[in-house]
Amino acid sequence: MTSESGYFTESLSDKVVTARNAAAQDPRLKQVMEVITRKLHEAVKEIEPTEAEWFRAIMFLTETGHTCTDWRQEFILLSDVLGVSMLVDAINNRKPSGASESTVLGPFHVADAPELPMGADICLDQKGDPMLVHGRILDTQGNPIAGAKIDVWQANDEGFYDVQQKGLQPDFNLRGVFRTGADGSYWFKGVKPKFYPIPDDGPVGKLLAALGRHPFRPAHLHFIIEAEGHARLVTHIFDPDDPYIASDAVFGVKESLMAEFKPVFDPAKTKAAGFTSPYFDTEFDFVLAPA
Amino acid sequence: MTSESGYFTESLSDKVVTARNAAAQDPRLKQVMEVITRKLHEAVKEIEPTEAEWFRAIMFLTETGHTCTDWRQEFILLSDVLGVSMLVDAINNRKPSGASESTVLGPFHVADAPELPMGADICLDQKGDPMLVHGRILDTQGNPIAGAKIDVWQANDEGFYDVQQKGLQPDFNLRGVFRTGADGSYWFKGVKPKFYPIPDDGPVGKLLAALGRHPFRPAHLHFIIEAEGHARLVTHIFDPDDPYIASDAVFGVKESLMAEFKPVFDPAKTKAAGFTSPYFDTEFDFVLAPA
Repeated sequence: MTSESGYFTESLSDKVVTARNAAAQDPRLKQVMEVITRKLHEAVKEIEPTEAEWFRAIMFLTETGHTCTDWRQEFILLSDVLGVSMLVDAINNRKPSGASESTVLGPFHVADAPELPMGADICLDQKGDPMLVHGRILDTQGNPIAGAKIDVWQANDEGFYDVQQKGLQPDFNLRGVFRTGADGSYWFKGVKPKFYPIPDDGPVGKLLAALGRHPFRPAHLHFIIEAEGHARLVTHIFDPDDPYIASDAVFGVKESLMAEFKPVFDPAKTKAAGFTSPYFDTEFDFVLAPA
Repeated sequence: MTSESGYFTESLSDKVVTARNAAAQDPRLKQVMEVITRKLHEAVKEIEPTEAEWFRAIMFLTETGHTCTDWRQEFILLSDVLGVSMLVDAINNRKPSGASESTVLGPFHVADAPELPMGADICLDQKGDPMLVHGRILDTQGNPIAGAKIDVWQANDEGFYDVQQKGLQPDFNLRGVFRTGADGSYWFKGVKPKFYPIPDDGPVGKLLAALGRHPFRPAHLHFIIEAEGHARLVTHIFDPDDPYIASDAVFGVKESLMAEFKPVFDPAKTKAAGFTSPYFDTEFDFVLAPA
């Protein structure tokens, strides 16, 4: 229903706009724009922005766009800090009961990380506290999955990924691809991860500051796990003792993704694990949903 | 209400995000972000975008940002074609019954247009069909307003403003500021305006095309009218016979802002009006609301 004339009125504002899209060829675009227009007009009617406030919003979006480059995506960051990225992830990755939960991919995945023998140390520069990560890849019936591909990446003990410190870290530092054997188990070495800030020198960082929010993500390791006949799993495991565990700037944390990082001092265990000093032991089983 | 842990869940998504803004200093920012977050999450939940669709939205916003320069504002254009600019205008300019309605300012106003004697011709290059615009500035009781400042600007007969054709049109072509005398009346000469497209070579133009919409604004003249003790009026008058009158790309048209452009062929009238050829006669009274 639009006004009789089809001209703009405050009360019918979104309907007048949407009526203009009647000839759109793509029915999905038409539907998406109807919802966006309606929700946008609802927001404006509830906020009742002054013209100066509207202009501040225009300038915020403009600065966000101007901050985007080939290597920085400030609109994804905005989506992240508003919880939209996690919501889109949740909608697209609803899992059956018992399957491991997903979380956001993040910007630091690299497609061509090297495939390594099980047990390899992905830390190429020996910096940080040594860590052993191990567990099993299972189906929702508890059976081990053989031939599962585990793509893991993490920041170093200072909170930086290799791609953020080219020249300072070896290429492919703290990245690796592993494949499970018949028993579905996996194990590799790395370093205990640390919290780190999302890029906070742009408009999104300024917004966070104005909202009284910090820019930190709690310590985590990233995983993509794939196996034939199963749904791809993109997730993290988190350190529950991290100071930012309850306030991840991008809302990536889920209760089910907590992993314990247990310090191991026993020299016999240390030696058996192939370390020369105490290390952190982290055990986590991933359960893949059927495809 | 957030989940007990405060961690992200699909069902409580917007509340988890908003709970993080608890320490925001500016109560208005806090309120605005609560509404934006809630409406954004409502839209995502209703649309259920795929990850590829989410990424298309990110890239659309990025390209819109990259199209903004010192002289082009693609986010304002986006606000315009989604009816948001008109909605913000409507919210900020609710007028008492009988007062002239407002419409959007648009990007082509120039602050320092010359003040001209009543009756002057604002068309400096004699191109186009001559037009006489006249009427009165009144208050809501029907009394004439003396000393009202009338700032008028228009595109030429090819649909371009002087600032879009620097060097091709004289500076300040088709702009002028006039002041009413004791009887509140005004009159000046110009050229019959023509429809013109909004900039349609960027992401907003591509969106319009995908939605089956044209980029045209129907022929109009812009006015800002100011007088002591009265609310400032920013408006247009429109040609009701324009082919795009019912489909203004930016939704600026209102029924009450139609002006007739009557052709006058009578040589006596033509001579009396100071023209040497037939002309268009346009009469429009503006009614200012009290301050």
